Amino acid sequence: MKIRVAILGYGNLGKGIECAVSQNDDMELVAVFTRRPPESVKVMSGTAVYHADRLTEMQDKIDVLMLCGGSATDLPEQTAEYAKYFHVVDSFDTHAKIPEHFARVDEAASGSGHIAMISVGWDPGMFSLNRLYANAILREGSDYTFWGKGVSQGHSDAIRRISGVKDAKQYTIPVEAALASVRGCENPQLTTRQKHTRECYVVAEEGADRGQIEKEIKTMPNYFADYDTTVHFISEEELKRDHAGIPHGGLVLRTGKTGRNKEHNHVIEYSLKLDSNPEFTACVLVAYARAAYRMGKEGMKGCKTVFDVAPAYLSPMTPEEMRSSLL
Amino acid sequence: MKIRVAILGYGNLGKGIECAVSQNDDMELVAVFTRRPPESVKVMSGTAVYHADRLTEMQDKIDVLMLCGGSATDLPEQTAEYAKYFHVVDSFDTHAKIPEHFARVDEAASGSGHIAMISVGWDPGMFSLNRLYANAILREGSDYTFWGKGVSQGHSDAIRRISGVKDAKQYTIPVEAALASVRGCENPQLTTRQKHTRECYVVAEEGADRGQIEKEIKTMPNYFADYDTTVHFISEEELKRDHAGIPHGGLVLRTGKTGRNKEHNHVIEYSLKLDSNPEFTACVLVAYARAAYRMGKEGMKGCKTVFDVAPAYLSPMTPEEMRSSLL
Repeated sequence: MKIRVAILGYGNLGKGIECAVSQNDDMELVAVFTRRPPESVKVMSGTAVYHADRLTEMQDKIDVLMLCGGSATDLPEQTAEYAKYFHVVDSFDTHAKIPEHFARVDEAASGSGHIAMISVGWDPGMFSLNRLYANAILREGSDYTFWGKGVSQGHSDAIRRISGVKDAKQYTIPVEAALASVRGCENPQLTTRQKHTRECYVVAEEGADRGQIEKEIKTMPNYFADYDTTVHFISEEELKRDHAGIPHGGLVLRTGKTGRNKEHNHVIEYSLKLDSNPEFTACVLVAYARAAYRMGKEGMKGCKTVFDVAPAYLSPMTPEEMRSSLL
Repeated sequence: MKIRVAILGYGNLGKGIECAVSQNDDMELVAVFTRRPPESVKVMSGTAVYHADRLTEMQDKIDVLMLCGGSATDLPEQTAEYAKYFHVVDSFDTHAKIPEHFARVDEAASGSGHIAMISVGWDPGMFSLNRLYANAILREGSDYTFWGKGVSQGHSDAIRRISGVKDAKQYTIPVEAALASVRGCENPQLTTRQKHTRECYVVAEEGADRGQIEKEIKTMPNYFADYDTTVHFISEEELKRDHAGIPHGGLVLRTGKTGRNKEHNHVIEYSLKLDSNPEFTACVLVAYARAAYRMGKEGMKGCKTVFDVAPAYLSPMTPEEMRSSLL
């Protein structure tokens, strides 16, 4: 019997979940739920679409509900609410609010006997795991996380709000010299400006003052002022042709010392290079859906993060297969 | 109260454990056991040294025993034997024999109620974990493991057995072009020769036939014949000065496709660059000793691998600290 998965929210992440489930033989997508009129949502795989109001009627048809809403307003309400009815997985990524999200979700999931996996994806998610493993191994050392090269949705939106801008895409790019210094075990103290640059591709409206737009971007507090930012004005056609994707990625590094006199240096590096940020994130969520289902079957309950999940729960292989082929 | 750790076998790995324990505030090294005359073993930290025969008398003084012997003859006997008395951690790395080792150790540890962590280190160990995570996430893709640049003890030994060779050190080196092809998502099928080269530093005895030595190395079956091998003759002084260390490392990569038409490529890469192979391995073992102790406290028992250990058990942080600082 397959693990019955449902999706709430059919945006980029929800579509990624649909693709990811189709790559996993032990799972099936049983329904897509939306807060829009269901008939307005066209689902690639032809799976049934229902209004979100009907979710709680379908408790006996769904094993794991994938919450594909945003961290700002959707997940703070949805995860705790639906953990009363299903095992749930979310990608809550507002780092500062994870403790309160955890507490709220844990109360709901513990009460209902479900597993609620929160903050799954690559950061938080796989990057967090690598920070934890590397810190547990190299006890004396330094941590570094770089993001990119990749599209930052928030920064692209910020540019679009400037008067005279028709459309825009912003790439975050790690600074190679900073990376080289970290890999060389120089333990640099890096400022914001030294770690990442920002590259902006902007479509200006006809007659707009490009000099003014560029100045507004480069001096924008929080978003751009602390970075070396370059602005390229391109045509709408060029933006569509060359910047349609949502690539991302990044690196987690830890360097540390061992030995009687701390004479030996070590570098642990984990990196991701992703053509599609939402599709990769979806793949991680689907692996953790398998874990949620299995841990639930074993009688575990409550809110869990990637730190709480033994890796074996993620793989469709048997323990024997894992030991003989992956160990 | 600290976790009381003991070491059996005071070679490079045992010395590494001694260093690693000193970097972990929640642990203390209580004894070193050896099969040599104890008075002949000088321990850096001044910890008490006992003959291995006395181990079983000290069940109430030791929480976790670190088995620092070799995989060929020591661990196949020791791990199952001592799992009757203690939580144990080993670095058993004969991949093909892991299933039978697991079965034997599991019987002993399950019977005695202890945790026995086997095959801990970086390969098997951290590399295995990264293979598992990456395979669970990217379900359609290709796996690659590269080793080096690093010293292969087995290959160095093989050279030393050649007549006319006084001493030797062999480095295994990944081929950059192969790595670039993998990272470029070209999914290459790589032969042994295409993945690694072998670089040998040889001290010849006076009057030895260097041409003959070089030929014997390069044509040695299994060890060198399938690789592009370079041989450098150097003086004993040069070997001591430039090749005294035991560096190692390597990379685990998985590339895979997602999307409706499998149109998106992704690269997951994990790499290690280690000045001291045994000291890094020891750090991993010590983190898993903490996990063994904690899992034992929770009533778990039996043989475990890195796949069975939820990451949170490895860190000295509280769950709250982990979630707020690492997630």
